[in-house]
Amino acid sequence: MKAAIILVGTELLNGAMVDTNSIYIAEQLNKYGIEIEFKLTVRDIKDEIYKTIDYCKKNVDLIIMSGGLGPTIDDITKEVIASYCGKKLIVEEEELQILKEKFVNVGIPFKNINVKEVEKPEGAISFRNDVGMAPAIYINGIAAFPGVPRELYNMFPKFINWYAKEYDLLQDEIYIKDIITYGIAESLIDEAVRDLFTENGIYYEFLVKDYGILIRMQTTQSNKNKVEKITKKIYNKIGEFIFGEDDDRLETKAVELLRRSQMNFSVAESCTGGMLASTLIGVPGVSDIFKEGIVSYSNEAKIKRLGVKKDTLDIYGAVSEQTAREMVLGLKTDVAISTTGIAGPDGGTKDKPVGLVYIGIRIKDKIYVEKRVFKGDRGRVRKKAVSQALFSLIKILNEDV
Amino acid sequence: MKAAIILVGTELLNGAMVDTNSIYIAEQLNKYGIEIEFKLTVRDIKDEIYKTIDYCKKNVDLIIMSGGLGPTIDDITKEVIASYCGKKLIVEEEELQILKEKFVNVGIPFKNINVKEVEKPEGAISFRNDVGMAPAIYINGIAAFPGVPRELYNMFPKFINWYAKEYDLLQDEIYIKDIITYGIAESLIDEAVRDLFTENGIYYEFLVKDYGILIRMQTTQSNKNKVEKITKKIYNKIGEFIFGEDDDRLETKAVELLRRSQMNFSVAESCTGGMLASTLIGVPGVSDIFKEGIVSYSNEAKIKRLGVKKDTLDIYGAVSEQTAREMVLGLKTDVAISTTGIAGPDGGTKDKPVGLVYIGIRIKDKIYVEKRVFKGDRGRVRKKAVSQALFSLIKILNEDV
Repeated sequence: MKAAIILVGTELLNGAMVDTNSIYIAEQLNKYGIEIEFKLTVRDIKDEIYKTIDYCKKNVDLIIMSGGLGPTIDDITKEVIASYCGKKLIVEEEELQILKEKFVNVGIPFKNINVKEVEKPEGAISFRNDVGMAPAIYINGIAAFPGVPRELYNMFPKFINWYAKEYDLLQDEIYIKDIITYGIAESLIDEAVRDLFTENGIYYEFLVKDYGILIRMQTTQSNKNKVEKITKKIYNKIGEFIFGEDDDRLETKAVELLRRSQMNFSVAESCTGGMLASTLIGVPGVSDIFKEGIVSYSNEAKIKRLGVKKDTLDIYGAVSEQTAREMVLGLKTDVAISTTGIAGPDGGTKDKPVGLVYIGIRIKDKIYVEKRVFKGDRGRVRKKAVSQALFSLIKILNEDV
Repeated sequence: MKAAIILVGTELLNGAMVDTNSIYIAEQLNKYGIEIEFKLTVRDIKDEIYKTIDYCKKNVDLIIMSGGLGPTIDDITKEVIASYCGKKLIVEEEELQILKEKFVNVGIPFKNINVKEVEKPEGAISFRNDVGMAPAIYINGIAAFPGVPRELYNMFPKFINWYAKEYDLLQDEIYIKDIITYGIAESLIDEAVRDLFTENGIYYEFLVKDYGILIRMQTTQSNKNKVEKITKKIYNKIGEFIFGEDDDRLETKAVELLRRSQMNFSVAESCTGGMLASTLIGVPGVSDIFKEGIVSYSNEAKIKRLGVKKDTLDIYGAVSEQTAREMVLGLKTDVAISTTGIAGPDGGTKDKPVGLVYIGIRIKDKIYVEKRVFKGDRGRVRKKAVSQALFSLIKILNEDV
């Protein structure tokens, strides 16, 4: 079965927005063995959308559209679908009531213009939007979703479940396994694992993400055992760089290991400025073991909140192994993590360049401090420092506890 | 003049790569007033590329292709263009010599397969590639570039200069102005501003971002004055919801106002768990006025680090107006911000549901506490709390200081 993705929105063509919706859609459709033949991005112009639908209809079985379901004058996707299908736009009383209730719930006055959000071509099926206003719709091989990613994520699973049942698609046609590495270059992973993929029908690729590089293996369910064997071999070759699989992330893995070893923790951040705490607090249920975070950006805060010695700051500087060490000593939980560095763009010197970061980790009375120099702009240096701190914590917890 | 962009490459459809080339191409073409009608992403399959070129040819004047110019078997872009134009593929001796020299220069042996990189449809013009191997080509309204971004960036200016001369295109640069709102629904903005856009040639749209909703106005430089007039009228209508323009963000605006009023600041976070500090520390140069952040996730930390009274926590709870108030009192800087709330997914009750957040702001000895109930998952509630805290701070600083 073949599909096309149509992204509607002038802003997607003039550089204002990077499209992530189509990546999500492709992944979801791939699970059911539906191939994406092509992706089209069009402006909010009736004729152009119409032509595009017509072109896709002649080439694929299923069209997924994203964008243009809102209430404003440039939201015309449903109108064009109706016209293409020779249907009129209708409003179902029940859907209108649900919409009005949503407006009451969020405390925004409902205006006539908003009725448009529940308009749909006569005969179209709707999928309930739990996180926004306009429902997704489906009619005659065309599904239309809002352009707002979280609304798409909310409704796409409902749609694809329904569609798979309707067309007897089996979900487990495709089997995907991700192995997640950190701290190793793509070319080195490639060199290490390339020879393992000699079997026909097992496809692999590398996906570079913020939290590491994924080795994604894709095949059919019948090859699952073979993938497991390859997985073992990959661990044998580059296991030291692997921190998880599939839905694992650095922070979920770190919290899982901390919880398993029944240790509470806290963090003291300088250059990462709350990003490490924020990332860890993103893990649901962390509150039972996370005690506190100190964003000790000024020297004053390092001294007062963490008991870093004034002498240490004077002699070695705020960005130093000694300071990172005293920062973790200042926190009284079982485990403590500290970061201190120069995120840039200013503040670098020859000895202490922009990108220099010290990461301190204390597990009870054992202290580890590592020095890194990260490349990139302010945001990049801070993100890399957070990822490195989490990866180092995972490694230490795996080995030493 | 209208153009289409065709991106060639199976990897662009399965989520392995995010496309940035088309954003660059769109910006360059916009400078000459060339509109992008649509963008198509296709797999490395001859028939599909052919069909796509055919579809574009029927709709636009200029096709820009990216990808598929390399030496390997899946690089078929030039072959398809030749076949579409009814030309044979040729190799010019001079271009072959240049290519061979490049191989000598980088010390890679030249193989027969590499000849393909200088093949082109008979009659096509080439543009020299200073940073890679395959030149870009142009024939009959179709230009083809490599998919590697730095090679595209190297040759696109050469192409567009030549093309603009050939077709007498003047650079009538596009003028874009963004007005950034917060805390007002898209439909209400639309209602307020719709009547202001009566002029021809001034196009507007709404872009929903994490940090607010943008009103984007787009026109040519010659209409700049008209946009300024409209901008003033927009401020008159919904000024209370506007916090900035163009590159402004909530955090940059907040830091700018704090710096202007010469006040230092610190934050105390519970539910946002470091995200507020991290967002503010993302602003370069903030270190002179940001003193510290306390992620007081546990009651213990609230008491010990911020001096919140145990009684307050016992009587009113950690998520309460009183606690938010005592949190900002516990920080000793000129300005202090606090958040305390229930981010979910667990921990909600009937009286204090998931999404309930108290935001405290202290400007010297004036304290403001606001109560909000945000919808969405854990990540969403935390992000909204951060944005709301920043927006409220901006409003207070604008009004009261």
